[in-house]
Amino acid sequence: MAGLSRFNLADIIAVLTHTPATLDALLHGLPDTWVRGNEGKDTWSAFDIVGHLIYGERTDWMPRVRIILQNGEARPFDPFDRFAQFKESEGKSLEELLDDFARLRRENLAALQALNLQPTDFTRRGKHPALGVVTLSELLATWAVHDLTHVHQLSRVMAHQYRDAVGPWSAYLGVLQCDGHSAP
Amino acid sequence: MAGLSRFNLADIIAVLTHTPATLDALLHGLPDTWVRGNEGKDTWSAFDIVGHLIYGERTDWMPRVRIILQNGEARPFDPFDRFAQFKESEGKSLEELLDDFARLRRENLAALQALNLQPTDFTRRGKHPALGVVTLSELLATWAVHDLTHVHQLSRVMAHQYRDAVGPWSAYLGVLQCDGHSAP
Repeated sequence: MAGLSRFNLADIIAVLTHTPATLDALLHGLPDTWVRGNEGKDTWSAFDIVGHLIYGERTDWMPRVRIILQNGEARPFDPFDRFAQFKESEGKSLEELLDDFARLRRENLAALQALNLQPTDFTRRGKHPALGVVTLSELLATWAVHDLTHVHQLSRVMAHQYRDAVGPWSAYLGVLQCDGHSAP
Repeated sequence: MAGLSRFNLADIIAVLTHTPATLDALLHGLPDTWVRGNEGKDTWSAFDIVGHLIYGERTDWMPRVRIILQNGEARPFDPFDRFAQFKESEGKSLEELLDDFARLRRENLAALQALNLQPTDFTRRGKHPALGVVTLSELLATWAVHDLTHVHQLSRVMAHQYRDAVGPWSAYLGVLQCDGHSAP
């Protein structure tokens, strides 16, 4: 219960509300070096990461909230497709993706607020297809920390484009030591 | 020369220009949980990190550019105080720090542009007190990647506040595996 004792819906909503503007401020109008560069074969660029966040808004977070509230553990969540963005983002500009993400997040936060969740709801349980039993508070906390994990990844992918250019300073720059932890 | 072949002043200025708005969008108005929490003894909160970035604008980046242009390797850079922000930020609000950072960065970018640097300037050399010989292009690239290393750190410090609350999802969230690489 260590996690739940810390959980506060207002904290979560604050991060979720800030993320679209954060990504827009970080990425909008940047040269392609920063936006299209990745970390090598089978890794993601900033463009790919924004597409992934959009797909999460469409298919992951609020659908799973609703499954917990309506079905509990009886119906496991649908698995999430971590590669859908490669097809979904095709032909779009980064600016279109940033706008799509901001709109979808706004809609999802309105839907979340409309549920008028009460403290007793946060312990309600659902079933993750790989992780097993999870609670509504864990899902909501994960939604926010998932945003942060992709801000973390964005800064690392961008820094990678100038890995060589910093010369001996690379030893002092933590982001250049980060190996991605086999996860975003 | 791998780094230098990649170096482009417009890329660097683009990142440096975006960072104040990025930090403002990420942090402005967030609950103290996110702003004042750190990762344990002798680690930095988001508030401390913004103070560190301010001190860099005041004493590190442009002063070192000027030392390279005026003195070359003859005069080593002054060492940078990584703990100055604890005294300098005392009594200020996060919003004051964010505004201070934005103003100082704007002034420094104007000063950088006024130097009208030419491609031949980028290979000019200076002397770092610990790292030895460095070039102007390496210093400018480091200024931008240093911003990114602190965006990386900010996302990690914030995520740490909800480390327990995500339950079993922690295995999937890369930012929670990041140990800080003994550096920001």
